Amino acid sequence: MRLYTYFRSSAAYRVRIALNLKGIVAEQVPVHLMKDGGRQRMPAYLAKNPQALVPALELDDGTVLTQSIAIIEYLDQLKPEPRLVPDDPVLAAKVRGVALAIACDTHPLNNLRVLNYLKGPFGRSQADVDAWYRHWVLEGGLQAVERLITGAPFCFGAGPTLADVILIPQVANARRFDVPIDHLPKILAADAACTAIEAFARAHPSRQPDAE
Amino acid sequence: MRLYTYFRSSAAYRVRIALNLKGIVAEQVPVHLMKDGGRQRMPAYLAKNPQALVPALELDDGTVLTQSIAIIEYLDQLKPEPRLVPDDPVLAAKVRGVALAIACDTHPLNNLRVLNYLKGPFGRSQADVDAWYRHWVLEGGLQAVERLITGAPFCFGAGPTLADVILIPQVANARRFDVPIDHLPKILAADAACTAIEAFARAHPSRQPDAE
Repeated sequence: MRLYTYFRSSAAYRVRIALNLKGIVAEQVPVHLMKDGGRQRMPAYLAKNPQALVPALELDDGTVLTQSIAIIEYLDQLKPEPRLVPDDPVLAAKVRGVALAIACDTHPLNNLRVLNYLKGPFGRSQADVDAWYRHWVLEGGLQAVERLITGAPFCFGAGPTLADVILIPQVANARRFDVPIDHLPKILAADAACTAIEAFARAHPSRQPDAE
Repeated sequence: MRLYTYFRSSAAYRVRIALNLKGIVAEQVPVHLMKDGGRQRMPAYLAKNPQALVPALELDDGTVLTQSIAIIEYLDQLKPEPRLVPDDPVLAAKVRGVALAIACDTHPLNNLRVLNYLKGPFGRSQADVDAWYRHWVLEGGLQAVERLITGAPFCFGAGPTLADVILIPQVANARRFDVPIDHLPKILAADAACTAIEAFARAHPSRQPDAE
């Protein structure tokens, strides 16, 4: 397997965590999102992922899977332990609900390409873009997630699930952009519990071969 | 079951399609997103969905599920036929990949709350907001989806899957906002195939009890 990745991409970070938790080794192929006007837009990469986004997971037969949550669900079927989406349908819906609250309603608004649009075509200042960033991380994002989490210390109990795998990179982003999250104790507890696990720690952007 | 919905919400539209395909009857409870400053922000609704978004599905025991894709995956487990996420793990990943390309990378950028932020705090004109809308629907959105679809007439073959359930409301939005999609023949074919099915047609915003 090959993982097309970028150290700072939080979507790639999610897949790195899942691979580590499952003990699956994938060759990491860095795709630099800033150099050469964005190497994710080069034809060779577009042929693999027409969305021009990382991550993408290339299987040994050449099949390419896109979208971090689709990839993680695939890995969960490929190697069911430790289970990231619980078998119980209601609990699975709650786990996916938290994961998607971040993946659909928080992260996409703060993606590099979106911030570039605000700075470029819309000509907003860095301060305006920072306010936008903080707004979406908190509003409808992490503040809602705090209320959707029902377990401890992880989001849904004694072990990490897909919810934690998606949450932790968003928390890392919040810290990087100085978004205040001290008022979210359940998220802080999940973050502390996950950070103590080597599979999570080893997936952190700062520990990637392409880190700058 | 109760579905908290709004006729124009494309996330609620997705769940309405899935319920119809499965033949599951849920009581529809309209939540008007524009009246009274947005009824989704009233305490009674926030207690059900702290994200202040529709849809939410309330089960008979009072459990509330949020996030349209999490709800549809739940319905797919509850009543497996017709199957919306295929059993084959690779095909499932491709189906989820298309669904998430729309749900994560297209729709959230064009949500009502985001357009309101652009018009309010950022003070952009309607023309600027329309350009933003068209950009995200096409760029990395439907143009990429066109290349990720591998079947016909539906996205992945002879019957609708989760990919079609998420695609069709996005196509309806594109049409409503005059986004040109005539150059996307596979999407047009899937849309035509789905529109011919009563479960899809009956879920259309114009046919909801709360339509205006």
